[in-house]
Amino acid sequence: MTRTVLESKTKTVIIGFDEPFCVIGERINPTGRKKLAAELEAGDFSTVERDALEQVACGATALDVNSGAVFTNKMAEDPRYADNNFVEPMLMREMIARVQAITDVPLVIDSSVPAALEAGLATAEGRPLLNSVTGEEERLELVLPLVKKYNVPVVAISNDDSGISEDPDVRFAVAKKIVQRAADYGIAACDIVVDPLVMPVGAMASAGQQVFALVRRLRDELGVNTTCGASNISFGLPGRHGVNAAFLPMAIGAGMTSAIMNPVRSVEMEAIRAANLLMNHDPNGADWIRFSRVLDAMKEGATFAEASQAAAAAGAGRGGRRRARG
Amino acid sequence: MTRTVLESKTKTVIIGFDEPFCVIGERINPTGRKKLAAELEAGDFSTVERDALEQVACGATALDVNSGAVFTNKMAEDPRYADNNFVEPMLMREMIARVQAITDVPLVIDSSVPAALEAGLATAEGRPLLNSVTGEEERLELVLPLVKKYNVPVVAISNDDSGISEDPDVRFAVAKKIVQRAADYGIAACDIVVDPLVMPVGAMASAGQQVFALVRRLRDELGVNTTCGASNISFGLPGRHGVNAAFLPMAIGAGMTSAIMNPVRSVEMEAIRAANLLMNHDPNGADWIRFSRVLDAMKEGATFAEASQAAAAAGAGRGGRRRARG
Repeated sequence: MTRTVLESKTKTVIIGFDEPFCVIGERINPTGRKKLAAELEAGDFSTVERDALEQVACGATALDVNSGAVFTNKMAEDPRYADNNFVEPMLMREMIARVQAITDVPLVIDSSVPAALEAGLATAEGRPLLNSVTGEEERLELVLPLVKKYNVPVVAISNDDSGISEDPDVRFAVAKKIVQRAADYGIAACDIVVDPLVMPVGAMASAGQQVFALVRRLRDELGVNTTCGASNISFGLPGRHGVNAAFLPMAIGAGMTSAIMNPVRSVEMEAIRAANLLMNHDPNGADWIRFSRVLDAMKEGATFAEASQAAAAAGAGRGGRRRARG
Repeated sequence: MTRTVLESKTKTVIIGFDEPFCVIGERINPTGRKKLAAELEAGDFSTVERDALEQVACGATALDVNSGAVFTNKMAEDPRYADNNFVEPMLMREMIARVQAITDVPLVIDSSVPAALEAGLATAEGRPLLNSVTGEEERLELVLPLVKKYNVPVVAISNDDSGISEDPDVRFAVAKKIVQRAADYGIAACDIVVDPLVMPVGAMASAGQQVFALVRRLRDELGVNTTCGASNISFGLPGRHGVNAAFLPMAIGAGMTSAIMNPVRSVEMEAIRAANLLMNHDPNGADWIRFSRVLDAMKEGATFAEASQAAAAAGAGRGGRRRARG
C-alpha cells in the first residue's frame, strides 16, 4: 500500500489509502490576503501563529506555509524587494520557524520560488512535504534535485509547459511523466502526491466527474496518493460550503487521500470526518463521536474554532493527542 | 444505459446512471408511527396527504406508500382485522387513491403482503415501482408474476431464505439470482432496482465500504439500478444527518441511483443536490441555484418544507414543473 510519510519533530502523519484523510490547512498564505501581507512586511507574525493554532485545533493534520508575499513598501525603498527570489527565502525561514515552534504537525513548504523551497527545507524539522513540482521542464529540473537531496515527498501538479489541459487524459499523462522523471532521480512513487487539478464545476460541468475518474486512475495505475485545492470546485457558485461538503466525500470515495483546504470551516470538516467513518478509517467511530460533541457545543453558541480548541484541550488532558510519538 | 421508467398519470421519472438521483419519499408509512396508524384506523388520511405534499415540495421525485398498519381497535371488534392480508389491500387502495389525487409524482407500492401489492397495482395510475421482492423462494414466486402481469419495475432486496448475509459477495449473489429469475419471467434487468442492504456503520465498521463496492459491482456486472434505505447507515450514531449527508454523495459517486429516504431533511437533500451537480446531472447548475435560494430562505427563519413549498409555487408560476409531460 502506498504510504507517504510526513513528519514534524515529534509527529508522523501518513497519507495513504488506508488512512484517515489528510487535511492540509491552507490559511497561512499571504496570496490574496493583503492584511496578512502587510503584517508580514512589518515583521508581525501574530496572524500566522493564530492561524496555525486554530487550524490544528480544528483538525488540520498538516499545515501549508506559503511565502508568496509582495512587500510593497519595502519595494519602494529597496529594489531588491521587488524580487521574490530575495523576499521569499527569508520569509519562508521565519514563518516555518514560528509555526513549528508552537504546533506539532508536519509542514508543507509552499512556494513558486525554488530558493524559498530550499530555505524551508533547511529550516523545517522532520520530513515536510514540498509544494510543488509541475510537469514544466524547468521546474522538474529545479525541484526534483531538492526532493532527492532532502529525501522529502513532493506535490506534483499535473500541468506542464503547455499549461493546464482541460482533457483529463492529458493531465494523467503529465502526472505519469512527473512520476517517471522522479524515478530517474531515485524518488519513489510513494513520495509523489499528485494534484490532478480541480476545475470549478460552475464553469466546467464535467469537473467533478473528471476529478473522480482521474483520482481513481492515479490510484489504480500509478499507485500514488493525491491532493487538491478542494474549494476550487465550488468557485463562483452560491452555497459553496454545500458543494465542497459533497465533493470531499465523493473524492475520498474515489480514492483522494488529502486536500489543501480551510479546516476552520465546520461543514467541510464534518463531511470529511463522516467520510473517514464510512471508509472504515475511524476505529470504533471514536473521532466521529468526539467531533459530534464539538458540533453540539456549536449549537450552544461556540464558534467551530472555540469548540474545537476546547475539545482538543480536554482531549490532551485525557491522555494526549492521537498519533503523538515518544 | 440502464433506464428504469416510473410513471404517474402525467409524469415520467427515469432512474438511471445519467439521471439526477431519484429521491423516494419514505414518510407515508405507518410502521413505527403509532399516531399515523391510529389516524388511518379512524379513516383519517390528512397526515398522509400532508406528508405527500410536503415530500414532493421538498424534492421527492417518487413517493413510497406503505400499508403496514396494525388496526388494534378494529382487531378487538372483528378478528379479521388481525390479518394484514385483510387490512392492507383495502388500506393500500385508499392511500394510493388519495395520494395520486393530490400529487403528480410516480408512486412506490410498498407492502410485505402480496394482495396489498396487487391492490396497489390495480389502483395506481401510470407505472409505479413495486416494493419489493427478495431472494426468498416464496416471495419470488408470488411477486415476479405480478411484476410481469402489470409490466412494472420492482425493488429487489438482497436477502433470501437464509436471511441477510453480512458477506457482500453473498448479497451480490442473491441480487444476481433475482435478476436471473426475473429474466425467466421475461422481466428485463432495467426493471430490477436492487437494494444491496445498508448496515449501520456504527455496528459494522465496513458497512460503508461494503455498500460502495456492492453498488459498483451491481452496476458494472449486472447493469442494474440501485436503491437503499439510506438512513440505516447512521443508526445508533450521534450526528446522524452528518453521516447520511456524506454517505449519500459517496453512494452516488459509486453509482447508486435512488434511495428511500426522508426528503423533508434539508441537510441530506442539500448533499444530494450538490452530488447531482458534481455528477454533471444538473444542467447549468439550475437546480443547485434554485435550491440555494431555499437555503437562503431558511436562514431567514423558514422551515425547509415552507421554503421549498414557496419555491415550488414560484417555480410553477414561472412556467411549470420540470419533467412534466403533455
